[in-house]
Amino acid sequence: MPSKIIGGENQWVKLATALKKSKYREERQLFRAEGVRLAEMALASPLAMAYALVETAALTAERVRRLVADLEAKNVPCYEVTPTLYRKISDTTSPQGVMLIMKKPTHSLSDSPPNSAGLWVALEGVQDPGNVGTIIRTADACGAAGILAMPGTADIFADKVVRGSMGSVFNLPIYEDVTQEALQDFCQAKRLTLYAAAVDSEAKSCYRVDFAAATVLAFGNEGNGLSSELLARAQKIYIPMFGQAESLNVGAAAAVVLYEWTRQKRGLSAYQGD
Amino acid sequence: MPSKIIGGENQWVKLATALKKSKYREERQLFRAEGVRLAEMALASPLAMAYALVETAALTAERVRRLVADLEAKNVPCYEVTPTLYRKISDTTSPQGVMLIMKKPTHSLSDSPPNSAGLWVALEGVQDPGNVGTIIRTADACGAAGILAMPGTADIFADKVVRGSMGSVFNLPIYEDVTQEALQDFCQAKRLTLYAAAVDSEAKSCYRVDFAAATVLAFGNEGNGLSSELLARAQKIYIPMFGQAESLNVGAAAAVVLYEWTRQKRGLSAYQGD
Repeated sequence: MPSKIIGGENQWVKLATALKKSKYREERQLFRAEGVRLAEMALASPLAMAYALVETAALTAERVRRLVADLEAKNVPCYEVTPTLYRKISDTTSPQGVMLIMKKPTHSLSDSPPNSAGLWVALEGVQDPGNVGTIIRTADACGAAGILAMPGTADIFADKVVRGSMGSVFNLPIYEDVTQEALQDFCQAKRLTLYAAAVDSEAKSCYRVDFAAATVLAFGNEGNGLSSELLARAQKIYIPMFGQAESLNVGAAAAVVLYEWTRQKRGLSAYQGD
Repeated sequence: MPSKIIGGENQWVKLATALKKSKYREERQLFRAEGVRLAEMALASPLAMAYALVETAALTAERVRRLVADLEAKNVPCYEVTPTLYRKISDTTSPQGVMLIMKKPTHSLSDSPPNSAGLWVALEGVQDPGNVGTIIRTADACGAAGILAMPGTADIFADKVVRGSMGSVFNLPIYEDVTQEALQDFCQAKRLTLYAAAVDSEAKSCYRVDFAAATVLAFGNEGNGLSSELLARAQKIYIPMFGQAESLNVGAAAAVVLYEWTRQKRGLSAYQGD
């Protein structure tokens, strides 16, 4: 069990609070994973853990005590904080009283496995952390090979993205700050076909495209979509719509296209349509 | 143009502020639609509008002036408020300075059209307003006939749901407070088949179900799923998963299943799988 209660002036409390900000996550190469289930998933993931903060009241739960024992068995220091202090450190309105501080995974596109076929997801300027987390979670569910986060996209290791991904950021390789050029080079080197969700006269229905087995699916900004630079290099696809909605939420759109790729390439359909 | 600036003690300002709360939306049968695009969509929808609040600075934009002219041409009173006051009334961090107060549409299941085949969406205990808004938007895109909101689901007319739906709450018939019994009666009367997203041994892959043309798709609570009562009456379906994710965000899951229904029933596929 945590050996002693630490206070607001303690270095680990100050660091955990500082890590709310992208600047400090970048500087220290650490990020926060908050919540009991998320901490359990972090523990089961390959990522390294720096330390944990556990709120006094949370320790009354058997599940939290077991988590702390498992963390300590892996030599992850666990520090106890008061409920009042925990609320200040937390990012949530109803904190569960458990926060892991984890080491940011570092992946470089040039180190990616030589055989990287399969499904990749590129995010360009997706700003809402909830949308980014949702898309990473869906990509994981589809068995994607990795995520290419391009400039303008919400910080992958922000609290809300980590929570929204439900732990998928721990498991899926995520490449950050991927430029247009890096994306193009990567597609060429790995012979990946780039598809971009877009609504224009050249776009094909995602149900009438015969997706390549080695694919990058790109999704863009909530209001403005993908850049013209990326669109110029991609095969454009759209999702057919029938009611009065003008567009879909980008997390919903990504789910539709990712699962249409999955349906085609993983042979999911028995029912072939009327 | 708005005839005069009104202050914080004005009845329309007080009413708009009160309508942040579900209790007052219910009591007054009014709700708020905030943002320029949303106000334009409201104007184009069949719903009745009570009045609008427009922030002084927003009126410098040609698009907002045109909106105000269109509202006034429809006899919707527009009141001007100061930026400081507007920020107090607003629910958003970067307010666009335009808020419509609209009359809640009232739909009763017993008044629904006699021929209500097609796609219906039931939400049982979906708590996050962003998820509810996203699902309504996706349902609209699929040309759904309507939404059945069951107890425990976020208030459809809360600001965040209205914004998340991107105006689809104006266009799609939404039935509120639909009980288990009402859902069952409705399915029987309209000969609708009820499918429930669930993960258990009886569930079939949504890609291996031959969906009925007259369908209700039900989605449940973010953490706990659907009630056993509803599940007992439904055909259970699941979405196949391949990575390490244990589940999907409910907005993403709904997008996958709604579009699989749409693919099958609207004959979208040319490509029939490998």
